[in-house]
Amino acid sequence: MERTSFATRECPIARALDLVGEWWTLLILRDAFHGIRRFDEFQRDLGIASNVLAERLAKLVRGGVFEKRRAAEDGRSFEYRLTEKGLDLYPVLVALAVWGDRWDGDPLGPRLRLVERDGGRPVPPIAVRDADGRAMRPHQVRVVAGPGAGPETLRLLGHGDGDGPA
Amino acid sequence: MERTSFATRECPIARALDLVGEWWTLLILRDAFHGIRRFDEFQRDLGIASNVLAERLAKLVRGGVFEKRRAAEDGRSFEYRLTEKGLDLYPVLVALAVWGDRWDGDPLGPRLRLVERDGGRPVPPIAVRDADGRAMRPHQVRVVAGPGAGPETLRLLGHGDGDGPA
Repeated sequence: MERTSFATRECPIARALDLVGEWWTLLILRDAFHGIRRFDEFQRDLGIASNVLAERLAKLVRGGVFEKRRAAEDGRSFEYRLTEKGLDLYPVLVALAVWGDRWDGDPLGPRLRLVERDGGRPVPPIAVRDADGRAMRPHQVRVVAGPGAGPETLRLLGHGDGDGPA
Repeated sequence: MERTSFATRECPIARALDLVGEWWTLLILRDAFHGIRRFDEFQRDLGIASNVLAERLAKLVRGGVFEKRRAAEDGRSFEYRLTEKGLDLYPVLVALAVWGDRWDGDPLGPRLRLVERDGGRPVPPIAVRDADGRAMRPHQVRVVAGPGAGPETLRLLGHGDGDGPA
C-alpha cells in the first residue's frame, strides 16, 4: 500500500496525519499514555512486528513526539517518553476513545470512564465547547482563515457552507 | 502493506481506528465537514485514485458514518452525507487540526480559527476539561473501568501509573 506524504500540504489535519496517521501509530501512543515505555512492552501489548514497531518509534522520535533515552535503572535499555508535543495529542486520543466507546461499544456500557485523579469527579465528555462551556454542534462553528492561511486553505474555506474543522 | 483488523479488540481507540484509521479516511471526513458531498468533488480535492476513494466511501457507508443518497437536483448522481455517527467525529478532527496547527504550523501563525457562527466569538481550544471547564493535563486524569470493560481493558488499565485515554 503506497502512502502519499501530506507534509507539504497546508491543512493541519493532513500534516498531523503525516506524523501520527499511520497504522499502529495511534495505538503506540495509546500505550504510551498508559505508561508503557519500552520496546518490548509495546511489542508484547500490540503483537506488532519488531521492524514495524522500530520504524514507527523512530519516526515519532524524529517528529518530536517521543524522546528516546536510556532507562535509568540499567543503562542498557532505552525508553520512549512522550514529549510536550506528544502529551499534547491527549485530546485526539480521548476523542477517538469516546467516539469508539459511544458508537461501537459494549452492550453493557462504556469500557472506560475518565475521572479526576484528585477527587474522583467524573470528567465531562470531550467536545468542542463555546466560551460558556456548552458543547457545540459542527454547524454552530465557523472556520475562518488565520494569519498562516495560504492559498490551499483559502480554497477549501471558500467551498461553501461547510462547517469543518480544517 | 497488510493491515490487521482490530475489530475484535476491546479498546475503543482500536475499534475507532478500524473504521476511520485508514490512510485517506480522515481527510475524506475533513472534506465532508467542509461541505463536500460528491464523489468527483472528493476526488478533485484530494487527488486520490478513484478505486481507493470508492473503497473508503463504501466502508464508511457500511460503518454508518456516511449515508449515500441520490442528489435531489438531478436524481442520477449520489451524495455522501455525514450521519449522526459521522458528525460525532467532529471533536476528533478538531483535535487533530489544533494539534497540527500548534506543532507544525505556519510561522505566521495558525491557518485556521474557529468562531461561533452565531455571534463570532472565538471558540476555545478543544481540551479534556474538568467539570469546572479547566483544561486538564493527562496526569490529572485517571482512567477507570466502565461497565463494558472486559479482560483486555482490565489488563491494560492494570499496567501501572499510566494516564491514558484508553
